[in-house]
Amino acid sequence: MKVPHNLISFLKKEDNFLITTHINPEPDAIGSSLALSKALESIGKKTVLYHKDGVPEIYTFLPGQETFIKKNKEIDNNNLSLILLDCNTLDRAGIENTVFKYSVVIDHHETDKNFGDIKWIEPYAAATGIMIFYLLKEMGIALTKDIATNLYAAIAIDTGTFRYSNTNAEVLRVAAELVEAGASPFIIANNLYETWSKQRFDLLIMSLNTLEIIDKIAFISVTKEMFQKTGTCPDDTENFTNFPRMLKDIHIAVLFRQEGDDLWKISLRSKGDINVAKIALHFHGGGHKNAAGYKIRGNLKSIKESLLQQIYSLKNKE
Amino acid sequence: MKVPHNLISFLKKEDNFLITTHINPEPDAIGSSLALSKALESIGKKTVLYHKDGVPEIYTFLPGQETFIKKNKEIDNNNLSLILLDCNTLDRAGIENTVFKYSVVIDHHETDKNFGDIKWIEPYAAATGIMIFYLLKEMGIALTKDIATNLYAAIAIDTGTFRYSNTNAEVLRVAAELVEAGASPFIIANNLYETWSKQRFDLLIMSLNTLEIIDKIAFISVTKEMFQKTGTCPDDTENFTNFPRMLKDIHIAVLFRQEGDDLWKISLRSKGDINVAKIALHFHGGGHKNAAGYKIRGNLKSIKESLLQQIYSLKNKE
Repeated sequence: MKVPHNLISFLKKEDNFLITTHINPEPDAIGSSLALSKALESIGKKTVLYHKDGVPEIYTFLPGQETFIKKNKEIDNNNLSLILLDCNTLDRAGIENTVFKYSVVIDHHETDKNFGDIKWIEPYAAATGIMIFYLLKEMGIALTKDIATNLYAAIAIDTGTFRYSNTNAEVLRVAAELVEAGASPFIIANNLYETWSKQRFDLLIMSLNTLEIIDKIAFISVTKEMFQKTGTCPDDTENFTNFPRMLKDIHIAVLFRQEGDDLWKISLRSKGDINVAKIALHFHGGGHKNAAGYKIRGNLKSIKESLLQQIYSLKNKE
Repeated sequence: MKVPHNLISFLKKEDNFLITTHINPEPDAIGSSLALSKALESIGKKTVLYHKDGVPEIYTFLPGQETFIKKNKEIDNNNLSLILLDCNTLDRAGIENTVFKYSVVIDHHETDKNFGDIKWIEPYAAATGIMIFYLLKEMGIALTKDIATNLYAAIAIDTGTFRYSNTNAEVLRVAAELVEAGASPFIIANNLYETWSKQRFDLLIMSLNTLEIIDKIAFISVTKEMFQKTGTCPDDTENFTNFPRMLKDIHIAVLFRQEGDDLWKISLRSKGDINVAKIALHFHGGGHKNAAGYKIRGNLKSIKESLLQQIYSLKNKE
């Protein structure tokens, strides 16, 4: 992976950065941001970590997460240069009407837009965390235990802990270097996958009971009633789509999550070569090849039909 | 890891080997056996791969698995030298009254016994597959795609695909080398975790509905009636214990699997430092620190009580 020279010169020259990432952030978004912030601070730079909604409870094990601020007014500072991570437009980060000195985009998502004075986009990188790893290496910044832990968590989540098709020898070697720098695979995996509340586990079982399979597509749903019954919240459905993925011959796993009476969040996870980002994009959502999502209004029946129609249309084009 | 010189000389000198492994074999047992067989054949040796019960259906994706034989009489040949993998006694492999020219044990389990003319036991190796990797490297045997796939699957299963506490930088580097030799992390993980039948998935949901938590120990059970209702078999419960492990603060996950009216197979999975092999050993079972099992007669209530008693007794000693 080749780190652009102008990005390195820019980071060396500037002193004040605002680092932010996309809404509904997961560990690649949060971990990459935390790692870059800690790295830049270690060479004397000032960074502000901003996220519109803050860090979800389940990811508060990431070291340094408490330094994220949620308030919009603190970022309204013309002296700050923006570094946008793991996404490539301001609206994906929930930022409006803010002026930055310069703006940088570092991302591995395919949906490349025009935003950014400096853009570094690697659609074939398994995670933004991998890009940050090479960036720090190129800049000669030492990997502390906290930086390594954040980057390892970033890579772990985006490769399904080395199970998805984006896992290659390079990803495993980067992971090995991060372990040598202090990241603990067990502690990170335990925090990512084995810290479920009993309530969340009950919600999972309820949602698995809704399983329906149509044409190698597995659907599960979570309704507002289920959240109420179990005392859970939308963040608790993280990773639910990985369960119907376990089924043989399933190409796409879908989670319908009810967010309002007629508002639904749809999460799509595909196996292998099926590009669900294209489907999400059609519905004005985003994501990458094997994991994408969008929001839509309607009832469960109508949103399932419109999704199926798009999947069939995509399959016909391929 | 230091490969014993006498093991290498022995493998170079002898020509006819019988390779076998433990009953209820999983991919570390099967994959290590297949990789060693293919490697020895590649340097002109003759090998017979034997397993009392054959390869379970869910692991038939491992390349070369069809070369395993089940018949006992073919192994009754005084000219064969035995290589026992991933276990260290003949009874764990289901072999009785058979005479071998020499016997070799290669294992990473702690329950070290006296059997074997040459014994190589590494309790700190994450998998027997890692030991075979170093053995082949030391012998200068090239890693083919099939050998790499078998060894990667072996390491993947025993580290929970790099999630358990036995995952370190070395394990990740070995995995990277195996990927370079042709192993596909995605195809292997897909075969290990994402080829569930609908029936097996239904059985999982039924068993999760039996979840009970006592003193940070999570219990689930699968009864004969559930097997009948879903049309599944005991092999289908593989990995079920990983689901209650997801719960926060759970130290041990337990699966009770009914094998006869009053006969149960108990699988134990622990997080971190809790050594469930010690518990299994008390009940004449086997395994390693974080994954062990045993069989016992009784009803669900009595076997749960006897297990709890042993867990409390172990905790008091530590």
